[in-house]
Amino acid sequence: MLDVWSFSQNGYREEDIVTNGNRFLTGNGYMGFRGTMDEWGRPQLAAVNLAGVYDQNGDKWREPVNAPNGLFARLMVNGEIAALGLAESLEHRQTIDFRRGVHSRDTLFSSVRIQSERFVSMAEPHLLCSRLVFHFQQDASAELLCGIDTDIWDINGPHLFDFTYKTEPVLLAEARTGELKIPVAAAQRVTTDFPYEETREVTENGVFRRIRFDAKAEQVYTVTLTVAIFTGLDTHDPGKAALTLCDESGSYQACLTAHEAEWDKIWRRSAIELRGGDEAARAMNASLYHLHSIAPRHADSLSVPARGLSGQTYKGAVFWDSEIFLFPVFVHTEPELAKTLLRYRIATLPGALRKAAEYGYRGAFYPWESQEGGAEGCTDYNVTDVFTHRPVRTYFRDKQIHISGDIAYALWKYYEVTGDDSLLKEGGAEVILQCARFFLSRAHCRMDRDKAELLDVIGPDEYHERVNNNAFTNQMAAHCMSRALVLTEHFKKRDPAFINALLQTLDYEKDIPLLKAASEKLRPAFPEGKLVEQFDGYFSLEDCSLETVRSRVLDEREYWGTNHGVAAHTQIIKQADVIALMALFPTLFSDETVERNWRYYEPRTEHGSSLSACMYALTACRFNRPDLAWEHFVKTAAIDLTGGGKHWAGEIYIGGTHPAANGGAWMIAALGFAGLSVQNGEITLNPRLPEQIQSLRFPVTVRGKQVTVTVTHEGFEIE
Amino acid sequence: MLDVWSFSQNGYREEDIVTNGNRFLTGNGYMGFRGTMDEWGRPQLAAVNLAGVYDQNGDKWREPVNAPNGLFARLMVNGEIAALGLAESLEHRQTIDFRRGVHSRDTLFSSVRIQSERFVSMAEPHLLCSRLVFHFQQDASAELLCGIDTDIWDINGPHLFDFTYKTEPVLLAEARTGELKIPVAAAQRVTTDFPYEETREVTENGVFRRIRFDAKAEQVYTVTLTVAIFTGLDTHDPGKAALTLCDESGSYQACLTAHEAEWDKIWRRSAIELRGGDEAARAMNASLYHLHSIAPRHADSLSVPARGLSGQTYKGAVFWDSEIFLFPVFVHTEPELAKTLLRYRIATLPGALRKAAEYGYRGAFYPWESQEGGAEGCTDYNVTDVFTHRPVRTYFRDKQIHISGDIAYALWKYYEVTGDDSLLKEGGAEVILQCARFFLSRAHCRMDRDKAELLDVIGPDEYHERVNNNAFTNQMAAHCMSRALVLTEHFKKRDPAFINALLQTLDYEKDIPLLKAASEKLRPAFPEGKLVEQFDGYFSLEDCSLETVRSRVLDEREYWGTNHGVAAHTQIIKQADVIALMALFPTLFSDETVERNWRYYEPRTEHGSSLSACMYALTACRFNRPDLAWEHFVKTAAIDLTGGGKHWAGEIYIGGTHPAANGGAWMIAALGFAGLSVQNGEITLNPRLPEQIQSLRFPVTVRGKQVTVTVTHEGFEIE
Repeated sequence: MLDVWSFSQNGYREEDIVTNGNRFLTGNGYMGFRGTMDEWGRPQLAAVNLAGVYDQNGDKWREPVNAPNGLFARLMVNGEIAALGLAESLEHRQTIDFRRGVHSRDTLFSSVRIQSERFVSMAEPHLLCSRLVFHFQQDASAELLCGIDTDIWDINGPHLFDFTYKTEPVLLAEARTGELKIPVAAAQRVTTDFPYEETREVTENGVFRRIRFDAKAEQVYTVTLTVAIFTGLDTHDPGKAALTLCDESGSYQACLTAHEAEWDKIWRRSAIELRGGDEAARAMNASLYHLHSIAPRHADSLSVPARGLSGQTYKGAVFWDSEIFLFPVFVHTEPELAKTLLRYRIATLPGALRKAAEYGYRGAFYPWESQEGGAEGCTDYNVTDVFTHRPVRTYFRDKQIHISGDIAYALWKYYEVTGDDSLLKEGGAEVILQCARFFLSRAHCRMDRDKAELLDVIGPDEYHERVNNNAFTNQMAAHCMSRALVLTEHFKKRDPAFINALLQTLDYEKDIPLLKAASEKLRPAFPEGKLVEQFDGYFSLEDCSLETVRSRVLDEREYWGTNHGVAAHTQIIKQADVIALMALFPTLFSDETVERNWRYYEPRTEHGSSLSACMYALTACRFNRPDLAWEHFVKTAAIDLTGGGKHWAGEIYIGGTHPAANGGAWMIAALGFAGLSVQNGEITLNPRLPEQIQSLRFPVTVRGKQVTVTVTHEGFEIE
Repeated sequence: MLDVWSFSQNGYREEDIVTNGNRFLTGNGYMGFRGTMDEWGRPQLAAVNLAGVYDQNGDKWREPVNAPNGLFARLMVNGEIAALGLAESLEHRQTIDFRRGVHSRDTLFSSVRIQSERFVSMAEPHLLCSRLVFHFQQDASAELLCGIDTDIWDINGPHLFDFTYKTEPVLLAEARTGELKIPVAAAQRVTTDFPYEETREVTENGVFRRIRFDAKAEQVYTVTLTVAIFTGLDTHDPGKAALTLCDESGSYQACLTAHEAEWDKIWRRSAIELRGGDEAARAMNASLYHLHSIAPRHADSLSVPARGLSGQTYKGAVFWDSEIFLFPVFVHTEPELAKTLLRYRIATLPGALRKAAEYGYRGAFYPWESQEGGAEGCTDYNVTDVFTHRPVRTYFRDKQIHISGDIAYALWKYYEVTGDDSLLKEGGAEVILQCARFFLSRAHCRMDRDKAELLDVIGPDEYHERVNNNAFTNQMAAHCMSRALVLTEHFKKRDPAFINALLQTLDYEKDIPLLKAASEKLRPAFPEGKLVEQFDGYFSLEDCSLETVRSRVLDEREYWGTNHGVAAHTQIIKQADVIALMALFPTLFSDETVERNWRYYEPRTEHGSSLSACMYALTACRFNRPDLAWEHFVKTAAIDLTGGGKHWAGEIYIGGTHPAANGGAWMIAALGFAGLSVQNGEITLNPRLPEQIQSLRFPVTVRGKQVTVTVTHEGFEIE
């Protein structure tokens, strides 16, 4: 019987190194440790990816910093290396335990069996632990090289410079980032259950111990590594903090117990018990495992990169994924985490104001790819052409303006679901007002018509750049403008002093009447039962099949969008766009309208983004066709088990884990299949269970109270 | 000493076939005959290109139709072919006589010398004549195959179908175009000065005579061919008309005399006598020769394709070249021809109204590439990518909106120069009003600002697509709007019945106040002495040298524009844009402002279009630096002698003659070097002669009176 709480792979194949690094990832929101072997290094993409620490080397893309790897441990037996991929392995198995957040491996070489497990502590954000157990096949002379490997994986590095090392009392490596000179420190403590001789050494690749011992067959040798990581963003003296934590943390078992207790709490707040297929149940668990592994529980104000903490792809940047795909699961299960994500946007408002001004607009234009302090990480050249190897001008940075509306949408949603307007008062209202002002200045009116337009934008479907009046964007902008007006009215009643001061500070009073006019002139009309055109002229584009477009592809890595892409001038779209609009604004569309649009757009959607399937699944549940949702659910939930998703955009590697799909899987199960909706503190359920599922059971937190929801084909229950 | 009235080339090289077909072209506006040998056919691109007759085959580009070649004549001597390129030639010389409009060749083969001359009659639009003279080297048995070759060159053909032939009394070939079933007929009469035997035959390639005779050395044999071409656009029965013309036209010499007399009249109205370098004088003559060869003197309402009548390149379409580059020479020398060009736009207004409506705008949006009846010949995919061989979406068709302004500009200029408002009353006013209405509906206002914008356009510099507020386009549009207001006022005084009826017919009264507001809000500000930014953000683009951009080119045929082009995101521009604005609106800019902008933009200009150099030369004269203009003048005037200009846009052949450069050469000489300006019937001159020129002498027609202008370094004279 399938264990729905773990995933294992037997055997070793070199071509799985990249994918396994992602699917066997462990993390705690502060850092992510790729699913690599203890003895691996840069060539196998071993990495300790740090959340929120960025560095730019020269004119290469800015990206998050990987810390030195303090869990490095490589065994030599009689002078022969025992390392996966470098020596022949007779058996090999790698496992990730979702419930406990523990990674393990079990590898039999001809000379020795190596079993190890590791975790990134959910109880202590700065702590990494591993335990290695060696079973020698014959008596042998053994040497374990373990320490802090500073020769680490980087896409656009190096990022760490000016290394200094200590070998006593424990190993310590300190360095600074190149751009902002942020100090980064890693300390490593070793314990064994056997006597040994050792030397400690500093090389150009780090600081290490050589532990030599005469090993006996039939005896078991255990080594535990305790590693502490700190940066200058955490403390004034990261080196000292790392040494202290190494010194003060308890035994491996004690640390593990504390870690497991935290994971247990997490699962009790959010696990979805899915009865039906074990494969689906495991995929659901895997999705939530990956999401929780990277949630910024340690921080007050931080968000989640598009590829989580699985590496430096997508520049470690925060996208709209956070507000539209991750925010829902958190606001319904751990609202304090939803708040942490939104506080990141409040804190980075100055960057958004700067970006708007840079383009000649007013208000807040949030970065498409937000890096530290709200700096825009997205460049004007985000794809490399596979035919000419030249950078291609893309318009994600300057035209994907719906981002500001997405953030306002989530800020308002937080208030709607929690009934708590404190976040609005703590900066959220200012963000919404500034986003509305941005759309006001970005909108145009034709000289001879009384209709507003948003011209030259990119909607969620990025294959069609520079379009006019994208329905999703126009609605998101009109919504943002009307939320600005609504929140003004709200606080004029509840806290006039607050809102009047804010309006005055922002010199906003004269924008109010403009906003009133613009929000009405911009709001798209959605006639009942009609197809919604994705943007002006979409229906006039070539209406060919996905297969036709695919048949025109000359290089599997070529990008389908931009002016030259094979999809750009057809009706084939990358991901849900009109359907995302319908998923996010359910009250604007009848079930019939949703179904008609779904049936039009679904066959025309490549689902080339992991953000797509969940929107289609949610809307299929809406018109009571969960059977149409099922395949999308499975694909979404399993994405980080199967290693699915695109790996290349032009010549740029974009692989990693998929937090948005992870959040999307929860959305499909809870908001789609169970039909969960929270309004004014009231839970409603409208079950649309597919036949593959017998029941769903999951906790929901509403206004500080946790309830458990059970949904079956017969009905539902709220405890 | 160089003959400034002719151009010859000695020797034969296969690679010159394409270029020589252009530079030795003969034509009369009704048709153009490529500069090929009598014995050549489709492989050597022999063509009789018809003005204004278009056909589309399948989904290939619509293009002008080539008539069957009635001047085909191929000699066999003792069973051996005597054809250039197919038999060895001992001597060969090809000549074009600019003054008489006569093409000649003189080729010595081992067996025979062939001398021939031909002309496309300037006296009778439908007539083509050639005379062949054979000098045999030894007595020989000779066979001349001559007739109507229907196996003709086509780029996107075939275009002629359903051929029928007659062999008596003269040869006749009739066919119909595929799309509109327009009949096309060619008849051929032969006369000789020697007895012969003949057979007449119809083959799959046309209808022919085989003329056999026993040739004596030292005797001269002369054959003349008289060909008549008619189409269904000329007459109900083109076959009959062709036979009649063949029958009634006089001897070769009589036809030639009439032809020469017409050329003489043309030169007396427009020749520019340039004293100084013979090369420059010849280039000037060549330019005007090519321009006059294709001017539509036979028509009331017709314009000139971008590559004249040299073939099917650029789809035989009419561009802004006609109004901005050809119109000036005609309005100053043969105003009735200027009127013919503009009547073409008046007649094709319905097509422009349809095009505007197609894009959701009001008023008249003229085709970027105008074909018959004002149909838009420009497609959405105007370039083929050299790396993928896929069509590339270009935006010339939908975004190059200045075309409507250019037409209004010329219509108004016609009135300014001639003082004649009859053309405005005959439809010109309606065109200007509808163009102004188009710009009104195309302009936008930001919701929070009182400034109008023209967004998402292409200016004259086509390397930068989809830009905002191109200065040239905004000014052209604002000018068009203000002309609409000015002409309304003009006719309210002069002919209120006319204008009131027109405004009522067009339901225009309510647009007048909108136009007043919009033309002011749109008009760009041009601060004294400041650089004018070509479009929003131009100065922020990469500022690299032309050499840098060139160094990035991977394939010499790759297109530099569109989103992927090497120039698109740099400040390197294809052709004059801000400088064209300054050339066309001289009163808006001080000499200092022009010079400052010239010195900025000139090094950043590729001059990748033959429309560029003339604008730079004109403006250099403006700030009294004719030395800077000189090189541009020579390049412009000589373009069809040297075979200059680009031959490829992506994988599309774009070679041919360059009417716009021909017109540009006149503009530089007359408007630039002589500083000619006509206002209210008054000629003013402001000579800026470069040191390479001693004097310029040329006729100008002002309000029906022809005067001769002489300009020297000492001063000027008007006779």
